[in-house]
Amino acid sequence: MSLDAALLAIDRACTSGSVVKDLDLREVYARDQSETTPVVPEAVVRVRSTAEVAAVLAACHAHRVPITPRSGGTGRVGGAVPVPGGLVLALEGMDRIDAVEKDDLRVVVEPGVVLQDLHHAVEAEGLFYAPDPNSLESCRIGGNLACNAGGPRAFKYGVTRNWVLGLEVVTADGTVLEVGKPTAKGVTGYDLAGLVVGSEGTLAVVTRATLRLVPKPEEVATLLVFLPSQAALGDAITACLRRRVMPRCLEFLDELALDILRPKAGLAVPTSARAMLLVEVDGEAHEISRQTELVGEAMLEAGALDVLLARSEHERASLWAARRDMSHAMRRQARQKLSEDVVVPRTRIGALLDRCNALSERHGVRVATYGHAGDGNLHVNLLWDDPDDRPKVEAAIRGLMEATVELGGTLSGEHGIGVLKAPYLPLEQSPALIDLQERIKGVFDPRGVLNPGKIFPAGARKFHGAC
Amino acid sequence: MSLDAALLAIDRACTSGSVVKDLDLREVYARDQSETTPVVPEAVVRVRSTAEVAAVLAACHAHRVPITPRSGGTGRVGGAVPVPGGLVLALEGMDRIDAVEKDDLRVVVEPGVVLQDLHHAVEAEGLFYAPDPNSLESCRIGGNLACNAGGPRAFKYGVTRNWVLGLEVVTADGTVLEVGKPTAKGVTGYDLAGLVVGSEGTLAVVTRATLRLVPKPEEVATLLVFLPSQAALGDAITACLRRRVMPRCLEFLDELALDILRPKAGLAVPTSARAMLLVEVDGEAHEISRQTELVGEAMLEAGALDVLLARSEHERASLWAARRDMSHAMRRQARQKLSEDVVVPRTRIGALLDRCNALSERHGVRVATYGHAGDGNLHVNLLWDDPDDRPKVEAAIRGLMEATVELGGTLSGEHGIGVLKAPYLPLEQSPALIDLQERIKGVFDPRGVLNPGKIFPAGARKFHGAC
Repeated sequence: MSLDAALLAIDRACTSGSVVKDLDLREVYARDQSETTPVVPEAVVRVRSTAEVAAVLAACHAHRVPITPRSGGTGRVGGAVPVPGGLVLALEGMDRIDAVEKDDLRVVVEPGVVLQDLHHAVEAEGLFYAPDPNSLESCRIGGNLACNAGGPRAFKYGVTRNWVLGLEVVTADGTVLEVGKPTAKGVTGYDLAGLVVGSEGTLAVVTRATLRLVPKPEEVATLLVFLPSQAALGDAITACLRRRVMPRCLEFLDELALDILRPKAGLAVPTSARAMLLVEVDGEAHEISRQTELVGEAMLEAGALDVLLARSEHERASLWAARRDMSHAMRRQARQKLSEDVVVPRTRIGALLDRCNALSERHGVRVATYGHAGDGNLHVNLLWDDPDDRPKVEAAIRGLMEATVELGGTLSGEHGIGVLKAPYLPLEQSPALIDLQERIKGVFDPRGVLNPGKIFPAGARKFHGAC
Repeated sequence: MSLDAALLAIDRACTSGSVVKDLDLREVYARDQSETTPVVPEAVVRVRSTAEVAAVLAACHAHRVPITPRSGGTGRVGGAVPVPGGLVLALEGMDRIDAVEKDDLRVVVEPGVVLQDLHHAVEAEGLFYAPDPNSLESCRIGGNLACNAGGPRAFKYGVTRNWVLGLEVVTADGTVLEVGKPTAKGVTGYDLAGLVVGSEGTLAVVTRATLRLVPKPEEVATLLVFLPSQAALGDAITACLRRRVMPRCLEFLDELALDILRPKAGLAVPTSARAMLLVEVDGEAHEISRQTELVGEAMLEAGALDVLLARSEHERASLWAARRDMSHAMRRQARQKLSEDVVVPRTRIGALLDRCNALSERHGVRVATYGHAGDGNLHVNLLWDDPDDRPKVEAAIRGLMEATVELGGTLSGEHGIGVLKAPYLPLEQSPALIDLQERIKGVFDPRGVLNPGKIFPAGARKFHGAC
């Protein structure tokens, strides 16, 4: 059998004990942090080096065995869920952070590094790596690269792709390549590093990444802005930008999300507040007070009920802990939750929120929304208790996706497409565009063994039964 | 003949007069601003719309006629030079700038827009588009996208790719696709917009681009820093970064370049100065004086002889005019000039300059260097008079390319590979990496009709005789 032959080759090439077949462990690797139906892999291969990754992929390619790379397993769309008869390539053991190259403003890391460990390592040197998805305590760089992770600070600092200089990657047949450039600039050949980032592990496996850093901002100030209505949100952002202030975060919570946050954040939320913005500015100490003032001014002009300044590091930390827990807190509000991740042009956020309300009423599903308002990237959560309501939820999700595309937006801002959103891809992308991408996938992975069943509808249907 | 059939189809599909065959005009389109041997195209097709671009490409694909897209023709490596028997697709007539979408911080433009016109249009609305190659008065967006253009401000603001949201492109067979996202974020599918940017017109023709904007910095200050030696350069940059100052420009001129600038810039350059840095900081008015102070402090700590502040807009303008004229002024220093565009990690700039001096001595060729020191991106100019010295120059260039790669750098920072640098590609990229890129090219352009002969050595040899 081809699986046995592949495992034999892998076993020979890797450190003893790398191939794990215990059912308990395989079950852990059957799922990510999404509602994707788990699939237990035939084995989990825990790799420690680029050479091992290359050997494993070469064996899978030779014997046509599907393999799904995985680092932290914190994905929200099933991107790291294996396929029946396949293996998982577990990268969390490759977790080295090389010495921070302070004067070159860069650092080289392996894919298994936990994002927060990277933050600590570079900040200890007075430097800064901006991407900060909410899962930063558990997500790993490999997954951040696969999904082009964002986070609240993306508004000012951009997403993971903007922080990648060069990558060492292994393609499906085990070929090791250096893509991108370890320098600040570089236009030699096609931007394959940018192509691999965000490809959800379908084009190549990243084994080392050279990441760009910047000097760490000297100070940060966090403001809480209470709004009388969702409708005030658009004006608040516009008023801010018109004052030439680019906050590092502009996080929105709608009324239901605010209700959930209320008891956790240790805050006096005005009773008339119907929405909240968490605004964070950073920079040199002497700039912060001026920026804070400008944000306050802008928010009051836009009709804010109140603007509070989180004064201590402790206050800031408890606010962010509550904000980061939002996804889990919301899950506790109902037996079932599905979280979407749509993006619209920032001036269309108000329109999108209106559409969410209409969908909630029409389909009788609770909808709570929060997210990165500055980027127009909202996490729209559908909450329900009765499993029989699932068809109503699915109808609401399809309505949300259609509304997003109608408003000039895109299906996903940072979670990716994976399995769960693959059925909606044709709402946004033409058949010719999907076909072109599948042919590019074919160049990197001619036998279709590297993380099959993700992104593209036909594969998601075939391997995961996504409809 | 297939050319005739293609021209007939094109003539039918396009506005009357689009196909130009006058020799005078064809000769204009035979060259760009590089030393690439000119090739007179069979015809020039002046297109006015996406539909025309699609029809022209479909005809060339059907009849296997090579076609080279061109907007401003200001490229430095032959990327827009056509091939024998081929056509030129002239895009400069597609030069519309849509209304600036102020609150969405974006603008939609056609490829024929002159970069400076875009700067003026967005700055009139209080917004800012950062890329600023020195040819900004004549280069056009299509070429900026094709080469992923940089410029002095890239140090703080990044290169063209960082400013692209979405693109409308036409692939070789005439298929029109929307790639990228018009939103601030988006991870739906592969990043094909990023792949097309920097692909030198070999993958697709951009017919519309949605570009990201930011609020225009309120003020700018320009400092001139005179250094006693080239060796002081690295320390000067490091001292700046360690103070957490990210100037928007950190432009370097070596001794010879400084000699050329001296009479043009209306400056008292200290006689002991052996190198100069032009440093520019921007931001809110109240931040500028503090940043200027910090830069001054950093530079004096690093051993600068003198730091001058350009006080008036007039002083700034004359300095930049002199800096932008550097390439042409250098051309006037010798009968022959070749300009390279290498990048090294910024801490290796000193080492690269040493290698340039050694190469100059060894091969007996004058070398003058200037460029974007903050990014480690130097324009190394080889100057000579006697045509018989060409082999010495070629040897020096190969030595420079080898040194660049040895120092962990890349062959090109912003000019691209085109024809002139294609022979050196294998110094930096492995055969497997080159092969992968050629297969990606094959996905976009299976018949090899779209700007053949660029980037890859085999094609450059076949179509342009590059050795």
